[in-house]
Amino acid sequence: MPRYKLTIEYEGGAFVGWQRQANGLSVQAAIEDALAGFSGEQPVVKGAGRTDAGVHALGQVAHVDLVRDWKADTIRDALNAHLRPHRIAILSAETVADDFDARFSAVKRHYLYRVSDRRAPPTLDAGHVWHVPQRLDVEAMHAAAQAFIGRHDFTTFRAAECQAKSPVKTLERFDVSRAGDEIAFRVSARSFLHHQVRSMVGTLKRVGEGAWPVSSVADALAARDRARCGPVAPATGLYLVAVDY
Amino acid sequence: MPRYKLTIEYEGGAFVGWQRQANGLSVQAAIEDALAGFSGEQPVVKGAGRTDAGVHALGQVAHVDLVRDWKADTIRDALNAHLRPHRIAILSAETVADDFDARFSAVKRHYLYRVSDRRAPPTLDAGHVWHVPQRLDVEAMHAAAQAFIGRHDFTTFRAAECQAKSPVKTLERFDVSRAGDEIAFRVSARSFLHHQVRSMVGTLKRVGEGAWPVSSVADALAARDRARCGPVAPATGLYLVAVDY
Repeated sequence: MPRYKLTIEYEGGAFVGWQRQANGLSVQAAIEDALAGFSGEQPVVKGAGRTDAGVHALGQVAHVDLVRDWKADTIRDALNAHLRPHRIAILSAETVADDFDARFSAVKRHYLYRVSDRRAPPTLDAGHVWHVPQRLDVEAMHAAAQAFIGRHDFTTFRAAECQAKSPVKTLERFDVSRAGDEIAFRVSARSFLHHQVRSMVGTLKRVGEGAWPVSSVADALAARDRARCGPVAPATGLYLVAVDY
Repeated sequence: MPRYKLTIEYEGGAFVGWQRQANGLSVQAAIEDALAGFSGEQPVVKGAGRTDAGVHALGQVAHVDLVRDWKADTIRDALNAHLRPHRIAILSAETVADDFDARFSAVKRHYLYRVSDRRAPPTLDAGHVWHVPQRLDVEAMHAAAQAFIGRHDFTTFRAAECQAKSPVKTLERFDVSRAGDEIAFRVSARSFLHHQVRSMVGTLKRVGEGAWPVSSVADALAARDRARCGPVAPATGLYLVAVDY
């Protein structure tokens, strides 16, 4: 059975998240249904990461095994045709080796979190940014975020329902930068805990608005106490940008 | 009566266009209704340009006279509150002199047209770009577009229903550039004919896909014949970016 790697973009607003669930349409289910629609097979699509409801992807990666040997570009085009009108697009399909695993072969995941801190609400970007109608201090947030770099116990920034065996993760990058009225948080690591990026961004926002000092972020991390986390940032600004193998 | 200048962003997809019409909700009507909602007055809002149904704005400009003397920032915030949930935002409100006219005082208008020429359909940008699933030659389109620069009779690129007295316009800028899978057409002039930008972009697309030679654009312009225009590009990719005074 040939194995295919899919690179996937989606607008997460209409989905219950990546993973198939009983309570609504997931991205995984939509792609599996589209695969069944053109191939007649009922394959399981395995993703690199389980994005939550409302979270977007510019480059989610998944793998799938099919019985029949299709040309990879045919799979891409047939899936895109069957996925309409869902806001999910297969950017590429590639044939890969049998031991390629979208989740376990991944060596780095890249996330982007977008905040708009202008006074007026977003229109074209509605649902695609977190709107914080108060000017945030980007330099303070970037400085505070550097405490996250390296290997740490991220218990403070982990959702109660997180299923990871260990709260220890190694962050390679956390950059906060501004372009006009928009702030980009760019975060990279091999893997993340559940709600980790949104928990870190929500905490940094408290620094950005001047409510908490820069040093509070390192203190909250060292405390390994969920109660020290700021309010978790909403799903709407989060993007899974790319997965490296 | 104080006069206010409003700078306005909107997602045009849900509107019949800028101008108030009987057949659906316009941006102008939504703003006038919001003004009535907080001020109790029934003012007329006059825009710099009449964007068509589905056309977006990053910086439409309008002026309005109110009887009562409000602080400009109060007008901005109150309008934004009353405009919800419409995808219209007042970016700024400023007090201006009585002789400021959003339409007639304008000295330059800037438009952007966005094309995505990747194979996969847009998801996050659905409704915000024209999707052309075939690689376009940006250098050829940019070269062809230079024929538009300067003062010309744009009869070829003018909608049949255009109400302008003269088909002669002076284009100051027409740049075509690529960033990844996205092509930006940036066009600036004092004023434009109805459907002029979309007509020019639709014609350049024929060059970009190799159907027409670069020289065909100058020939079509010189012909002053609507039949020589390419298929008009859809509203979905067009943005009124800014208006200079």
